[in-house]
Amino acid sequence: MEKSIFYHAGCPVCVSAEHDIIHLIGEKNVDVIHIGEDRSKIAAAESAGVKSVPALVTPTGNVLHINFGASIADVKG
Amino acid sequence: MEKSIFYHAGCPVCVSAEHDIIHLIGEKNVDVIHIGEDRSKIAAAESAGVKSVPALVTPTGNVLHINFGASIADVKG
Repeated sequence: MEKSIFYHAGCPVCVSAEHDIIHLIGEKNVDVIHIGEDRSKIAAAESAGVKSVPALVTPTGNVLHINFGASIADVKG
Repeated sequence: MEKSIFYHAGCPVCVSAEHDIIHLIGEKNVDVIHIGEDRSKIAAAESAGVKSVPALVTPTGNVLHINFGASIADVKG
C-alpha cells in the first residue's frame, strides 16, 4: 500500500490524533510530517489541500481533516 | 484488533470519508453505522463524544471527527 502523509504541528490535538492514526493504519503506512518544525513542507501541505492540522492525506490524494488543532494560517504565524 | 466504529449520515462528505477509512483501516476492522437511517444509534454516538459526522470512534474510545458533513443536531433534524 502506498503511504499516507500525516501533517501536524505538535499541538495536543495533533499528538493524540497521530497516536490513533498510527495505531489504526500502522506506522509503516504513514509518513509523519511536523510542519511547525519543518516549515519547508507547509507549501506541499497546502497544495495537497490541507486547511488545518492534524490532517491525513491518503494515497489517493484525499485530505482527511481530523478534529481541529490549528489552521495552516496559525502554523504560518 | 478491536473494531472502530464509523458513524455517518449518508452525506457526500461521509461517503467519501467512509471509502478512505475502509481502504486505510480495512473493512473488517470498522463497523459502519448510518445514524440517519438507524436513528436509535444517535444516542450512542453522542455518548461516545461524536459532535458531527463523519466520525470514527477508535477502539480506545477516542473520537476522530473527519472533515465535516453534518452536526449531530442536523442529523436529529
